[in-house]
Amino acid sequence: MKLNTIYELVQKELVEIENQFKVIAESERTTFPNLYEMLSYVLIGGKVIRPTLTLLAGKFYNYDLAKLLPMATASELLHIATLIHDDAIDKSDVRRWRQTANKVWGGDKAVLLGDYLFAKAGEFAAATKNLRVVKLFAQTLETISQGELKQGFDAFNLEQTRENYIQRISKKTAALFAMATESGSILSQAPEKSIEILKDYGYNLGIAFQIVDDILDYIGTEEELGKPIGSDLAQGTLTLPSMLLLERYPEDNPIKRLFQNGDKEENIKLALELVRNSSIADECYAAASNYCTRACRNLNHLPDNTSRQALIALADYIINRKR
Amino acid sequence: MKLNTIYELVQKELVEIENQFKVIAESERTTFPNLYEMLSYVLIGGKVIRPTLTLLAGKFYNYDLAKLLPMATASELLHIATLIHDDAIDKSDVRRWRQTANKVWGGDKAVLLGDYLFAKAGEFAAATKNLRVVKLFAQTLETISQGELKQGFDAFNLEQTRENYIQRISKKTAALFAMATESGSILSQAPEKSIEILKDYGYNLGIAFQIVDDILDYIGTEEELGKPIGSDLAQGTLTLPSMLLLERYPEDNPIKRLFQNGDKEENIKLALELVRNSSIADECYAAASNYCTRACRNLNHLPDNTSRQALIALADYIINRKR
Repeated sequence: MKLNTIYELVQKELVEIENQFKVIAESERTTFPNLYEMLSYVLIGGKVIRPTLTLLAGKFYNYDLAKLLPMATASELLHIATLIHDDAIDKSDVRRWRQTANKVWGGDKAVLLGDYLFAKAGEFAAATKNLRVVKLFAQTLETISQGELKQGFDAFNLEQTRENYIQRISKKTAALFAMATESGSILSQAPEKSIEILKDYGYNLGIAFQIVDDILDYIGTEEELGKPIGSDLAQGTLTLPSMLLLERYPEDNPIKRLFQNGDKEENIKLALELVRNSSIADECYAAASNYCTRACRNLNHLPDNTSRQALIALADYIINRKR
Repeated sequence: MKLNTIYELVQKELVEIENQFKVIAESERTTFPNLYEMLSYVLIGGKVIRPTLTLLAGKFYNYDLAKLLPMATASELLHIATLIHDDAIDKSDVRRWRQTANKVWGGDKAVLLGDYLFAKAGEFAAATKNLRVVKLFAQTLETISQGELKQGFDAFNLEQTRENYIQRISKKTAALFAMATESGSILSQAPEKSIEILKDYGYNLGIAFQIVDDILDYIGTEEELGKPIGSDLAQGTLTLPSMLLLERYPEDNPIKRLFQNGDKEENIKLALELVRNSSIADECYAAASNYCTRACRNLNHLPDNTSRQALIALADYIINRKR
């Protein structure tokens, strides 16, 4: 199944979500034009993977759009809000080929915009009128914040294991993917066993997604990614590629030099080159691929429909994406 | 009724909330010691007015602690989280006689800690199992963020009316006071008319509280307040005292000079002196007092009990507080 075909399955719904985004921005137009401007700028769907997951996960039982649409909207809003805070914290200038909110309005206003969007996301989660999902939403925001904080405390620390890495990305990324699929299944009144399978799918897909993200920060191009490469190292964040590089060159290593206050530009450039000229990316892709296999391992227990095929295809797409 | 007597009415419950705070911190002790340390540092009750309001507002009908306690906890957590973000944004060094989280751990980690506490607050709100209250909680966070953003966009802008000011503080402060009393009344199954009265009380009390806060930033002392005075002007925030000062001295005015890039220290010092040597504080107190009267105007429609007396006494305390 092609990526287009996957998205076609939920195309109408994704348009609905975009409309919701416009409604959110419009609600501030006359009373608070500055906020209207900010919202119009940031409320633009990116890959919209998370709402797509909520919707696809909702298609196995009772596809109740009155509940699934608000939750899919909440998934994307929560994602956008966390990106805004991440960029403000990392002082990133560019994302998705555009200036970040913090670049345009300053970090302070970006933080408050993120807070506003957390609240909006919470309102959409509450609009499902499902307390289990509301609780899941709040717990997910908690887990993401934990993961981001962990990343902050681990910055420029060379003593990290792969286990630390997986734990960190499971919090900062996989938790939201898992929320997306779990909430979709809960809201469609799936049996507990199916909820577990779909949650597990989202979780493992999220891990794979983040591993690929972290590879692309080494082997991608700025043109394709829409943001600078090498940014993880610049922030002092060890990811799977950098961990493998440290294992291969335990003595003389540009990452070590970088983390010990060596020249930033030169050492990042060297690290990227070393990764590109090695089999490290392949190893990372193999790890990501394993998580995708794990994601799909129990899908055969779900009803056989196009949504199931789409989830399997999505796992494939996650691995092969260039951005 | 003395302040001590007011707090005695909910003393046991406030101790319970403090215990909850300890449980929150403890939950991170072994898995994430850095976060444990942060939480132990920031999760300390201040004036605990907001949870007190939730509890007192809950005492008119069915005092259901299984719901009121989580919500009172959520009120205080939400308050603490917003303070942490405010301080990070303002780059404030001191609050409550102690270093701020951003001073101790840096602004980036403080922002993420605030996010974590928004989530925790949301979880406690969800623990009430009351969807109306969950929705109110999310809307309140949205309103507070709007108010803080408005303050950011209005910074160093001399063209502001008193109406702008009241609108801004109604969002950034009164909304949370109103949430505290409204949620308490909803969770105690108060009739709609009583919910309206208690919400209105919280809202007006919140306005009065913020006006007094803004006066104290001019006429208080650092020792009493536990934070530097003159901080609003330093941030470029016009409050009621500064607006009155601008009205009195429309031509040669230290605030004007400050906002037009004049000497910071000197002009703030001058503005504080001018306010202190005028009747401006009295005028502000009169305005605050009006809102307190408004807050209490309909309380006589509620059942007559010690909680009602406490709410009236609290309005009095709000005006006379020195910190």
